[in-house]
Amino acid sequence: MTALDLTFQALADPARRIMVERLSRGPASVSELARPLEMTLSAVVQHLAVLEASGLVRSQKVGRIRTCRIEPAALQGAERWIVERRAAWERRLDRLGDFLAETDDTSESKRKS
Amino acid sequence: MTALDLTFQALADPARRIMVERLSRGPASVSELARPLEMTLSAVVQHLAVLEASGLVRSQKVGRIRTCRIEPAALQGAERWIVERRAAWERRLDRLGDFLAETDDTSESKRKS
Repeated sequence: MTALDLTFQALADPARRIMVERLSRGPASVSELARPLEMTLSAVVQHLAVLEASGLVRSQKVGRIRTCRIEPAALQGAERWIVERRAAWERRLDRLGDFLAETDDTSESKRKS
Repeated sequence: MTALDLTFQALADPARRIMVERLSRGPASVSELARPLEMTLSAVVQHLAVLEASGLVRSQKVGRIRTCRIEPAALQGAERWIVERRAAWERRLDRLGDFLAETDDTSESKRKS
């Protein structure tokens, strides 16, 4: 599995996206992450493990509290991949637009002559 | 499964990402999509079905040729979700920066007085 495989896989679950949303607003404990989710704490810990394996989140336990933080690099990797696809697609549309404009000019000048 | 679940799930596979990369540069037949991939045509067709179910790609069969095109809306949905998380995270960093700057001003004026 590549980094992008793991990132997109981690983001493919609604509960994990809610956890990433919460952490993008600041660090949180596991029980804070669990609060809006209708699932057991053990299910939340499993989702957290997937997020940590993907590099989207890291956590640190101090005493009895595990604090989770977002790791922006993984999210940036996914964003970059999507933005590059969009750029390629928009370049193609531009070329298509230019081509149609040129074709249109040609037919225009033909009509004039 | 929500639209975002399906989009991120579809993007979590390297072969499907190669197919989306190819289609972001323009339409392609199934055999053109299969060319850079080391897999059977039937495996490519299965990946194509996942991409179509996610709304990232649509295809149309004319005669014996199935032509595949990218559907930018699904990719835009995924991009928007990631960009919103980054925006929230950057706002938090800004607030943290402001807070630290203010704290620093206070200690500065204390030293001066």
